[in-house]
Amino acid sequence: MRAVQTPYVLIDLDIIEAKYNDLANALPSTELCYAVKANPGGPVIERLAAVGSSFDVASVPEIELVLSYGVDPGRVSFGNTMKKQRDIAYAASRGITRFTIDSENELDKVLAEVPNAEICVRLFHECVGADWPLSKKFGCGAGDATRLLVAAGRRGATTGMSFHVGSQQRNLESWDEPLRVVAEVFEEVARHTRRPEFVNLGGGFPGSYLDAMPPISEYGRAINRAITAAFEGNVPRLMAEPGRYLVADAGTLHTEVVLVSERDIDSRRWVYVDCGVFGGLAETLGESIRYRLATDKDHDSMVDIVLAGPTCDSADIIYEKAGYRLPATLGAGDIVRIASTGAYTTSYSAVGFNGFAPLQQVYCGSQLLKSNPRSGAVSMGR
Amino acid sequence: MRAVQTPYVLIDLDIIEAKYNDLANALPSTELCYAVKANPGGPVIERLAAVGSSFDVASVPEIELVLSYGVDPGRVSFGNTMKKQRDIAYAASRGITRFTIDSENELDKVLAEVPNAEICVRLFHECVGADWPLSKKFGCGAGDATRLLVAAGRRGATTGMSFHVGSQQRNLESWDEPLRVVAEVFEEVARHTRRPEFVNLGGGFPGSYLDAMPPISEYGRAINRAITAAFEGNVPRLMAEPGRYLVADAGTLHTEVVLVSERDIDSRRWVYVDCGVFGGLAETLGESIRYRLATDKDHDSMVDIVLAGPTCDSADIIYEKAGYRLPATLGAGDIVRIASTGAYTTSYSAVGFNGFAPLQQVYCGSQLLKSNPRSGAVSMGR
Repeated sequence: MRAVQTPYVLIDLDIIEAKYNDLANALPSTELCYAVKANPGGPVIERLAAVGSSFDVASVPEIELVLSYGVDPGRVSFGNTMKKQRDIAYAASRGITRFTIDSENELDKVLAEVPNAEICVRLFHECVGADWPLSKKFGCGAGDATRLLVAAGRRGATTGMSFHVGSQQRNLESWDEPLRVVAEVFEEVARHTRRPEFVNLGGGFPGSYLDAMPPISEYGRAINRAITAAFEGNVPRLMAEPGRYLVADAGTLHTEVVLVSERDIDSRRWVYVDCGVFGGLAETLGESIRYRLATDKDHDSMVDIVLAGPTCDSADIIYEKAGYRLPATLGAGDIVRIASTGAYTTSYSAVGFNGFAPLQQVYCGSQLLKSNPRSGAVSMGR
Repeated sequence: MRAVQTPYVLIDLDIIEAKYNDLANALPSTELCYAVKANPGGPVIERLAAVGSSFDVASVPEIELVLSYGVDPGRVSFGNTMKKQRDIAYAASRGITRFTIDSENELDKVLAEVPNAEICVRLFHECVGADWPLSKKFGCGAGDATRLLVAAGRRGATTGMSFHVGSQQRNLESWDEPLRVVAEVFEEVARHTRRPEFVNLGGGFPGSYLDAMPPISEYGRAINRAITAAFEGNVPRLMAEPGRYLVADAGTLHTEVVLVSERDIDSRRWVYVDCGVFGGLAETLGESIRYRLATDKDHDSMVDIVLAGPTCDSADIIYEKAGYRLPATLGAGDIVRIASTGAYTTSYSAVGFNGFAPLQQVYCGSQLLKSNPRSGAVSMGR
C-alpha cells in the first residue's frame, strides 16, 4: 500500500455493495436510486452501477458523472426541485426523462423541454426524530401536490410523488404519515386524471455513528407495513433515494494530529488534527453527527479532549461538548481514524480554505483488486 | 467584457488598494499583514504585494502562493498556532522566520526548526461586540503567555504578542483591554529576559454589510489612543492582520435566479439562486453576516422573500428570517448581485457539493488593464 498524505477518506467498495444488498433485501420491489451528492467518487458510482443501482442526481455535473460510467439514462432521476432551464434541456438531450418538482413554475420549465417527462412531485413533510431535520426548502402540501399532479397528468406526463423523512431518521414510524397523505393525494388525483404511478420513499436510512440505530431490516419491515396500510391492494411502483446509508459506513477518515496543547484559559486538552469542519467534517457543526474515533493507542489511558481542525478559523472545532476521550499519550504525528465518514465529507469539503487542499478519497475493495491487479489495495482518485 | 458563467465574484482590485491605503493611514507605523485566508486570489496577492503589504499565512500552500508573487519571506508571518513539524521545516527552508504559537509544544516545534525565530505568542481574548465572536480555539492567558515569552526569549528568540478582537468588530474600545494585558505581560517578561518587541493588533476591521459600521479612521483613532494608554512612551513595533476589511468591499457576487416559487406550506416567496451556503455564502449560516442585495429590477415593487441556494440540502438557505425583500418581478434567469462578498466566499466554497463547481472569481481594476491591455476589464482566474 503506497503512502497517502492525510487527510483522506479510505472507502471500502465491498461495504457499499453489502449495504446496497442489505437495503435491497429490506425493501424488495423498490428501485434504489443512489443520491450521488452523498459521495460522488467515481469508483463509488462504478460499483453501485455494477450491482444494479439507479441514481438520483442534483446537477449537470452529476449527470455527466453517472452517464460516464455507462448508466442507462432511464435509471437516472434529476431530483433537484430547482433546475436552470438550460440544465433541464441538457438533461433531456442526454436522454433523462425523470424530474422532481414542487412548484408550478418548475413544472412548466420541465414540460417545456420534456413533454413526456416522468414528473415526481415532492411532498413537504415535517420531520421528527431525525438527527438532521429538514427545513421548508423543499416540497409542497397535499393541496399544491394534487393541483400539480392533475396539471402534469392532463398534459400527458407520467406522475408520482416523493417525500423525505429527514436525514439519519431513528423513528421507524416516520414513513407512516407521509405515505398516508400520498395515498390520499393519489385518490384525489385519480378523480381528475390518470392515477399517479409511483412513490419515491426518499432517504433517511442511517449511518453507524455513536448512537445505535435500528438495523435496516426493521426499517424495511416498518416501511413495507406502512405501504400496505396506506395503499392496501393498490401499491404503486416504488423507489427510494438512499445516500448516507449506502456509503457512510464504507468510509474511514484518516487525520493526523498536528498539535496537542493545554492552555491556562480552560485547562482542557485540545487535540488539533489536519481535517476539520471546513475540510470535510461539516456535519459535526453543532456536534449533531457524532462519529466514532479510533487510534493505535486506545489501550492507553483515555482523557477528555476537545477535537479541533487545522484552520485559523475559530468555528473550526469538531467536538467540544460531546464528551470525547482520546489516549493521554496521543501526540503530534499520530493518526486519528474517524469511522463511518463515507457520506457528506469529501463532497462538503472546502475547495481550499486556509490553503488546505480538499479532502481526498482513496479506495479499496475486491472488485478494484480484480480490475487493477497491480495497483495494490488502495487506489487514489476523487 | 466576455461572458462569465454565474455564480462568480467580481473583485475590483482598485478597491483593495484604496482600502489598504485607508487602513495604512488609520494605523500609521503599523505593518499590515494581509490575512491571505480571507481571499487567496492570485491578483489579490499581487496587488497587495505591489502596494507594500506584508502577509499572514495559515499553511504551506499559502506560503507558496505568496512567495510566487515575489514577496520577501521576511514580510511573511506564519500565523497559524498549530503547524505540522514538516510544514514549519518547509517554511524555514523558504526563509520564513516569523511564527505564531500559543503553547509550549508548538514553541518547541518551531524552535527546533528555526532557532532564531521571531515568536509571536497569541493571547486569548474574550470578544464582545463582534458579529463573529471567537471561540477558545486560539490563544493563552497572560500567565501562559508570560511563561512562553520568557522561555522563548531565554532561548534567543525575538518575541512579541498578538490577539484578535473578533471578526466584524463594532466596538471601538475592544482593543483597550487586550493591549493593557499585553503591556503588563511585557513588563513582567522584561523582568526575566529581553523585553518583547512587537504587538500584532490582529484583525476585526469590518466589511460593509447591511448594518452601518464606524469609518476606519475611528478605529485608527481608538486603537492609537489605546496603544498610547497601554505603553505610554514605550510603544513596541506594531503589526495588524486585516483580512475582511481589505477585500470584502471589493467583491460583488453575481448569482442567477434558478426558480421563484410560492408553495402552500408557508405562503412565502422562495427565491432560489445558483450560489448558496455551500457555494461560497457560508458566512450567512445563522444569518450572521447580512449582505446587501441588488438587482436590475429594484425600481419595481419589492416583496418579502426567502433566499435559498441551489443544492438538495435543506440547510442551504441563505436568508429566511432577516426580512429581505426583492422585486416582485424577479424571475428565473435574472441576476442578484450580492455586495461586499470579497472575503470568505471563494475560499469557503465547497469543492463540488451536489456536483456544482467551486465559486469562481474574476477581476477588474486599473493595474490589470495596464498589465493586460488586451484582456478587457475582466480577467478569469482563481
